[in-house]
Amino acid sequence: MSDLRPLFAPRGIAVVGASRDPAKLGAVMARSLARFPGTVVGVNARDADPAAGRFATVAAAAAASPDPVDLAVLCVPAAASARALADAAAAGVRAALVCSGGYAEAGVAGAAQQAALVSAARDAGVALLGPNTSGFLVPARGLTASFVPGVATVPAGPVAVVAASGGVNHALAFLLASAGVGISLAVGLGNAAGVTAADVLAHLAADDGTRAVALHVESVPDGPALVAAVRAATARVPVVAWVVGRSDVAEFARSHTGALATSWRTTRAALRAAGAVLVDDERQLVDAVTALSALRLPASADPGVGVVTAQAGPGLVHVDGLRGAGVAVPPLGGGTRDALSGLLPPLTFQANPVDTGRPDPAFGRVLATVAADPAVDLLSVYALTEPDVLDLPAAVAQLAGTPAVVGLGGPAGQVGPQRQALRALGVPALDGPTALTAAVTALVDDARARASRRDPSPRRPVPVAAPQRDLDEDEAKTLLGRLGIATPPRRACAGRAEAHRALAELPGPLAVKLLDAAVTHKSDVGGVHLGVRDAAGLDAALDALTAAGATRFLVESMAPPGVDLVVGASRDPVFGPVVLVGLGGVVAEALADVAVRTAPVDAGEAGALADELAGRALLDGARGGPVADRAALGAVLAALGDLLLAHPAIAEVEVNPLRVTAGGLLALDAVLTLGKEPSP
Amino acid sequence: MSDLRPLFAPRGIAVVGASRDPAKLGAVMARSLARFPGTVVGVNARDADPAAGRFATVAAAAAASPDPVDLAVLCVPAAASARALADAAAAGVRAALVCSGGYAEAGVAGAAQQAALVSAARDAGVALLGPNTSGFLVPARGLTASFVPGVATVPAGPVAVVAASGGVNHALAFLLASAGVGISLAVGLGNAAGVTAADVLAHLAADDGTRAVALHVESVPDGPALVAAVRAATARVPVVAWVVGRSDVAEFARSHTGALATSWRTTRAALRAAGAVLVDDERQLVDAVTALSALRLPASADPGVGVVTAQAGPGLVHVDGLRGAGVAVPPLGGGTRDALSGLLPPLTFQANPVDTGRPDPAFGRVLATVAADPAVDLLSVYALTEPDVLDLPAAVAQLAGTPAVVGLGGPAGQVGPQRQALRALGVPALDGPTALTAAVTALVDDARARASRRDPSPRRPVPVAAPQRDLDEDEAKTLLGRLGIATPPRRACAGRAEAHRALAELPGPLAVKLLDAAVTHKSDVGGVHLGVRDAAGLDAALDALTAAGATRFLVESMAPPGVDLVVGASRDPVFGPVVLVGLGGVVAEALADVAVRTAPVDAGEAGALADELAGRALLDGARGGPVADRAALGAVLAALGDLLLAHPAIAEVEVNPLRVTAGGLLALDAVLTLGKEPSP
Repeated sequence: MSDLRPLFAPRGIAVVGASRDPAKLGAVMARSLARFPGTVVGVNARDADPAAGRFATVAAAAAASPDPVDLAVLCVPAAASARALADAAAAGVRAALVCSGGYAEAGVAGAAQQAALVSAARDAGVALLGPNTSGFLVPARGLTASFVPGVATVPAGPVAVVAASGGVNHALAFLLASAGVGISLAVGLGNAAGVTAADVLAHLAADDGTRAVALHVESVPDGPALVAAVRAATARVPVVAWVVGRSDVAEFARSHTGALATSWRTTRAALRAAGAVLVDDERQLVDAVTALSALRLPASADPGVGVVTAQAGPGLVHVDGLRGAGVAVPPLGGGTRDALSGLLPPLTFQANPVDTGRPDPAFGRVLATVAADPAVDLLSVYALTEPDVLDLPAAVAQLAGTPAVVGLGGPAGQVGPQRQALRALGVPALDGPTALTAAVTALVDDARARASRRDPSPRRPVPVAAPQRDLDEDEAKTLLGRLGIATPPRRACAGRAEAHRALAELPGPLAVKLLDAAVTHKSDVGGVHLGVRDAAGLDAALDALTAAGATRFLVESMAPPGVDLVVGASRDPVFGPVVLVGLGGVVAEALADVAVRTAPVDAGEAGALADELAGRALLDGARGGPVADRAALGAVLAALGDLLLAHPAIAEVEVNPLRVTAGGLLALDAVLTLGKEPSP
Repeated sequence: MSDLRPLFAPRGIAVVGASRDPAKLGAVMARSLARFPGTVVGVNARDADPAAGRFATVAAAAAASPDPVDLAVLCVPAAASARALADAAAAGVRAALVCSGGYAEAGVAGAAQQAALVSAARDAGVALLGPNTSGFLVPARGLTASFVPGVATVPAGPVAVVAASGGVNHALAFLLASAGVGISLAVGLGNAAGVTAADVLAHLAADDGTRAVALHVESVPDGPALVAAVRAATARVPVVAWVVGRSDVAEFARSHTGALATSWRTTRAALRAAGAVLVDDERQLVDAVTALSALRLPASADPGVGVVTAQAGPGLVHVDGLRGAGVAVPPLGGGTRDALSGLLPPLTFQANPVDTGRPDPAFGRVLATVAADPAVDLLSVYALTEPDVLDLPAAVAQLAGTPAVVGLGGPAGQVGPQRQALRALGVPALDGPTALTAAVTALVDDARARASRRDPSPRRPVPVAAPQRDLDEDEAKTLLGRLGIATPPRRACAGRAEAHRALAELPGPLAVKLLDAAVTHKSDVGGVHLGVRDAAGLDAALDALTAAGATRFLVESMAPPGVDLVVGASRDPVFGPVVLVGLGGVVAEALADVAVRTAPVDAGEAGALADELAGRALLDGARGGPVADRAALGAVLAALGDLLLAHPAIAEVEVNPLRVTAGGLLALDAVLTLGKEPSP
């Protein structure tokens, strides 16, 4: 990727298309940049005025500038932008920001303008941000390259915002400022024709001033690049990802950035696998980076949270939220409880959560006592500000080492100073119990992501050759068998005689099916007969199948009862091979209760996917059923993912159902299809 | 219920247990009340000082007060509170606030203290708030009866907070103040031993100063009273209900208020049926009452929302959220689109949502054009503040009549004044796209609730007598038949001969089942044989059933295929009879995908319950299946609810499955059980 320092840390800036009309983009940009301590020069061929810092060409402007002009802000029509960029590059400019629209989001003509602009940038080695974005800001450098000048009020701080949309970038910067958290860099990518989210993440991974990244995602042009960038960044700095587009807003989204809308679910799964913390909306995003920019827990598969609340009601809301989010609020040890009983009135709740009743001078010792419990990795505290009776920053200062996060309620005049005092102690403060829950959940999710972090798996060898055509059920099951996936005993039969031989050889009762790679939904065409036990039954089944057009048959022992899953691997257009697991049957299908993960995935990670299913209780022996062996399930999923990675010609493999039986997993049906045009 | 004006609009107040020690509750309360413009007197038998406004008895204090002392704030130990209340009542006090704990939440001894306190209040006709609460505030009266003195900074305004918890009451008051919304009354109920949420709602229904109610619910002591109060209140003022306790936090909740934790799902269903708008957390609660205290849409089954956004990215987030919440964002009419094309640059998205690109002076006309579209009942606008190019309040002022709500991003110094200016126009302003979504959803939900509002159904006659014992399947189906619920043809058979006669008479194939009211899960004991077509098959089934202990048999025609539902009615300990519908089968059961409604319910409302199911696609002909007749399903649910209302002895009736077939609904199995001890 290109060096983004000329873009985000320029020495001098040229505004190309500077204007005297205060409503024009060039004038707004010049106003926004007024606070920049380096040189800002204007360029306007028709209205040059060197005395006013406005030159006819970038070259003239650069010649007059005391600082090298690294960045050009191009405020010119789309049709003129490629040429303007080339001119700027010729004058030594190494980065360009293009805010205006009229490019790929605007149809065929716009796409051509964008292509010309990108080509000019590539030829000249210029880092291009945009087009179609409201810009970026770097408060610590006094750099506001935005057509929303008010964003210059946003303070410097530890959070970087990387937003698909310029508007969202600004909205997030303002929300973070309201939450008392400053910005290291906030950038809206717009059409992302040049600089992508992956590029900015790579830049931030080396930026010591950034302690958390807020990543807003609408669509992903290059899935593997984004995944690699998130994986690399999260090794040093937490990345919190907010993927929009859960509901169907694809048409508007395309008009907005001209980009391919990808699958919301797959994008989330890919980012999570890469180590990002996921959130559902901008409020959770602000809460998460507020917390993660102040502290990061050690990697841990299941950190324990100790909750202390000065008011029972908000504490109840917080603990209810944590349990709903699957965060562990473990029982406190006996020693901790003994110590608490000496500190608290007898009527308070002293399990976890610990309700102190009205705070008193012992509050700090209560915090320290809970923090010292071996089961507690993070202390979460809620309190209303009561300066008369509780100096919360002083109480928190006694913790000596245990990470803590605080929820504060109170008048703005009290909350603001306490929040800053806590932040100075490395303790993030949130504004309510739900915000506190989002913050704690993010800290825990980040710790879990790091505990499950593995180096990208080396390509594992796949013990099957690439199929040359779609496989029928028998061939697909043979392939599954080579991958170590069990199937019931079966015979592929070319005629009645073979079928009757199979009846004699296989344990019954039998399933008798139409065998044809071209028929993927056999049941829908009467292609499956179950419970065949004798020659008469077999003949009846063969008669019916023959009538339905079958010339070959699969005769197979029926599987014992169990819980049916659907597992598979397919090729996502953005992220490449993904594996999937869901519960079988029409109800599960209607509920879309599936879990997805990008391949390659190792068996341990893949087995844990089952626990993301809403109906996971069914895999744990509900109603006396079998318990699904997570390791075996993970091995199946890992093998299917590896298969697609090894053989680009395979579009999809689906095992439906994969039955969980008392004796283990059994693939009862399988479909393998090749891509319409085999991938290179 | 008692008159709450002496509590919330007292002329004079006595603080009983006033103290010179500034940390004592009595001293904190006196400080909180210092701004009250009426008389506040202290009472302390051991430390009377009439010159300092502190008297030995309430009677002495009342005699010295220029205003009648209506309210006593009791800051005395639990053991002394009943006596203190009686003394105050004797001196003319008509309301009492008890903040301290040590009552029902604190075990058996505390429960006795609470009973004594309640008894004293009842005997004296005193409205008792508490115990175990942090109090209340009425900013417009300068009345802060709270042990969190900082809450005196909360401004007066149109929102009433009715919180189960004193801490949550304060937290909400502070969050509303931060959102720029003031308070008419904010009360924490604590143990709610005297004044309940229902009582406060009745008070607020007659309070012209309250334009929206924020209701926080932990547990419900009297379901029907709360439902009646919400129903009465929502006729005049919207009620937004936040029910906590989704996850299992029952133990802590009990310790908190000493109350029975009720079902989260049933409480939500009951409040919704009563006309409340439901929210999931305190942020949505603040958003909802911010909007509903400024405007209320006309009653409408499906109001259309027109979305105009000055920035595409936040608009996309907002529309994504609205679609996820099931809010209609209808296409705009051709005339509207023509008018917009004359106002907007050609490259912007002009469907619904309407993306204006950078705002210009035409923004107000864009708003008015969208607002005038016949499909638009509410206009929702998002914009970053850009005072140089957009005067948003002036643009909104052009709307003339169409309700509008605005999301604003920007620096606090710009957002605050714009928010107040918009509010003065009757337009609520929220701080981001997700908050805007919550606000719009609340406005729409309230309009829908009013559209579906019906007078409580008169008790409908139920054409069956009260059963005297648990019914077997045949009896239960006979009862269903009388209720108009279809069942397959069947015969109850006392022996083999009758069973063989049934085989001859009934259309096959047949189901043959064990018939015994004591066996509710027949399948689990091998009590069901399906697909019986002939005498040999029937004998085999009868042999097996007899071996399993059956002496009576149900022989029944098998139903055609279809989608299975579970429907039923049961008796909730708090809310009384409720009806339930869910998808059948183990997957749906594991996912707990059910919808609940309190009885009585009419058929129209009950039929709509099916559309609350996550798996509702299965009821609409997914995969070529039948479409469930909502009216018929509603009639089944209404009848089951009526049955439980008419016959208190019935504990539960469950139809599992109720099959949706191409020919209509069919009850395939049914269980009716009586309560262990029949209700009176």
